Amino acid sequence: MGGDAAPAMVIDGAALARERHRYLRFLMFGDESAINPLLSRHRMLRDVVEVRHTDIQVSPNDKPSQALRQGQQSSMRLAIDAVVKGDAGGVVSAGNTGALMAISKFVLKTMTGIDRPAICGFLPTLRGESVMLDLGANVECDQDNLVQFAIMGAAFARTILGLPRPTVGLLNVGEEEMKGNEAVKGAAAILNQANLPLRFHGFIEGDDIAKGTTDVVVTDGFSGNVALKTVEGTAKLFTQFLRTAFGQSVLSRLGYLLAKPSMNALRDRLDPRHHNGGVLLGLNGVSVKSHGSMDDVGFATAIGLAADMVADELIGRIIADMAQFSDSDDGAADGSQKAADEGDVEIADGRVN
Amino acid sequence: MGGDAAPAMVIDGAALARERHRYLRFLMFGDESAINPLLSRHRMLRDVVEVRHTDIQVSPNDKPSQALRQGQQSSMRLAIDAVVKGDAGGVVSAGNTGALMAISKFVLKTMTGIDRPAICGFLPTLRGESVMLDLGANVECDQDNLVQFAIMGAAFARTILGLPRPTVGLLNVGEEEMKGNEAVKGAAAILNQANLPLRFHGFIEGDDIAKGTTDVVVTDGFSGNVALKTVEGTAKLFTQFLRTAFGQSVLSRLGYLLAKPSMNALRDRLDPRHHNGGVLLGLNGVSVKSHGSMDDVGFATAIGLAADMVADELIGRIIADMAQFSDSDDGAADGSQKAADEGDVEIADGRVN
Repeated sequence: MGGDAAPAMVIDGAALARERHRYLRFLMFGDESAINPLLSRHRMLRDVVEVRHTDIQVSPNDKPSQALRQGQQSSMRLAIDAVVKGDAGGVVSAGNTGALMAISKFVLKTMTGIDRPAICGFLPTLRGESVMLDLGANVECDQDNLVQFAIMGAAFARTILGLPRPTVGLLNVGEEEMKGNEAVKGAAAILNQANLPLRFHGFIEGDDIAKGTTDVVVTDGFSGNVALKTVEGTAKLFTQFLRTAFGQSVLSRLGYLLAKPSMNALRDRLDPRHHNGGVLLGLNGVSVKSHGSMDDVGFATAIGLAADMVADELIGRIIADMAQFSDSDDGAADGSQKAADEGDVEIADGRVN
Repeated sequence: MGGDAAPAMVIDGAALARERHRYLRFLMFGDESAINPLLSRHRMLRDVVEVRHTDIQVSPNDKPSQALRQGQQSSMRLAIDAVVKGDAGGVVSAGNTGALMAISKFVLKTMTGIDRPAICGFLPTLRGESVMLDLGANVECDQDNLVQFAIMGAAFARTILGLPRPTVGLLNVGEEEMKGNEAVKGAAAILNQANLPLRFHGFIEGDDIAKGTTDVVVTDGFSGNVALKTVEGTAKLFTQFLRTAFGQSVLSRLGYLLAKPSMNALRDRLDPRHHNGGVLLGLNGVSVKSHGSMDDVGFATAIGLAADMVADELIGRIIADMAQFSDSDDGAADGSQKAADEGDVEIADGRVN
């Protein structure tokens, strides 16, 4: 029921995803009187969908704590419950980000060794795609949080991007060792020493994100959210300026017509629908957030991402990496012994990704 | 002597700036054997330049503390000394950012009421230009720092952009009051109450920078530096993708030729040389940093900015605004009584702006 164009966009997106991943089956949670008529249009899909009815849904304006306390029968809660029960391999939602994080954390629990889950997503780069986290779940992070993000992000890049030893960069205000705050300096010192299936590149800067200097960009949720939205804003500014430029004269309009196929290829490459999906990493289960404004194409991308995470056993890989890290590093072992505080839900943004 | 193409770029830039601002006169500090031959090519300029020779210069790799202690006869130090002596109205340098900040702070002193100076600069937006600070001088900021940045940034926008009551936004991970860390929440509470010549918009997000939602964007030096460089990186990514798209086929190359005048106008609008100049705000004197990779056109922009700051008495305006703020707000008065610690030079980046 979540997302601007739900539930139609969700159902059409599931149909698209099913065309690409023929093994997929769906549980859909929400108002069956809205879902069933839409579903009847998709002959292929309806045979692999089970609708579980509920009248209750989390609204976009609900506070996370409110959604958590009051919505035990909400479609979002029931969907996440299905993951922990083993009925579903993972959950995908285009609803309230804060509520999804809070309920996922409460129901699926934070992984052993992880102090705080993070939101992880893709960004287009000169070299292809990079993975960035945290995109806004934790506005303040210490060195252990950043190290854990690095381990989770690298496991994600190995699994989903198929990179055997992904490079990891720590976002900072300069490349030199003396630069930055205590958290990034401390995290760099730990990552330089640790024995992990990743190559730690060191510090990177804001312009390295688009360059694709590293496969994984690690940062706190404040800077990560600012960077993500700055990319979005700058891309829109550019697109708007380009539109103005092409419309300026008869010649430039003609030029646009001639260059149109190439321009469409460019647009395709930067299309946010192809990078959709904010993954909640650090939980004992797969939970993916689709951007609320996505259409069916974007939602299918998020479903595909969740399916890949389940098929490639991402959760197990992160657990294994955390164990390897804890064995090799006392500092990290301390971190892993801290009880993950399920009650302390700190959600930065309802509209991440 | 600072900058990749110095001193030729500095001298050519001064000549360009002098064409636009006929009242300008220059003191140039550095190696006269390098400067004089270059100067002799500029008939108009050389009559208004006094060269003050020194063999010593700050190198791009010098640590700020090192440049401060060892370089009392460096061209950078002598140029800043000239401001405090009253020989010059302001200083412009394309050299080592950290050194420029450290020496400017030491020589010019931090303004009464300001705890930490900030680096302030322009960014292109859909509506024209916005002012953003801090771009990297302070990696950690408390609420008082952010409030002071808001006051300084607004005075800058009033003076340099000619806006009578500029709008000010605090960069955050969401627009709602509950979002963000303690520093932004505290700063918002103070700015909502304060009697100041600005309109406080509240929280803004990363995509609001390019939209131009507010005239002034206030943030800590970590996020500000990340955002600034993310804009740069995304713009380069876009330009690169556009170049690829236009080169893809004969038709798209022809399209490019037809649209070229409009494309050039677009490039001009986004040209970083027209937004050049990182202003060190919060000092008792005008000190402007030019990007180290700038050519003469960019350096002339930075000179023009410094000239406007002097002509429009920006420093006096900030002092007046701080006094008005202190009178109206006890919390701020506390802040203004803190001694500005000249020794605590925290420089985030040698390549800001």
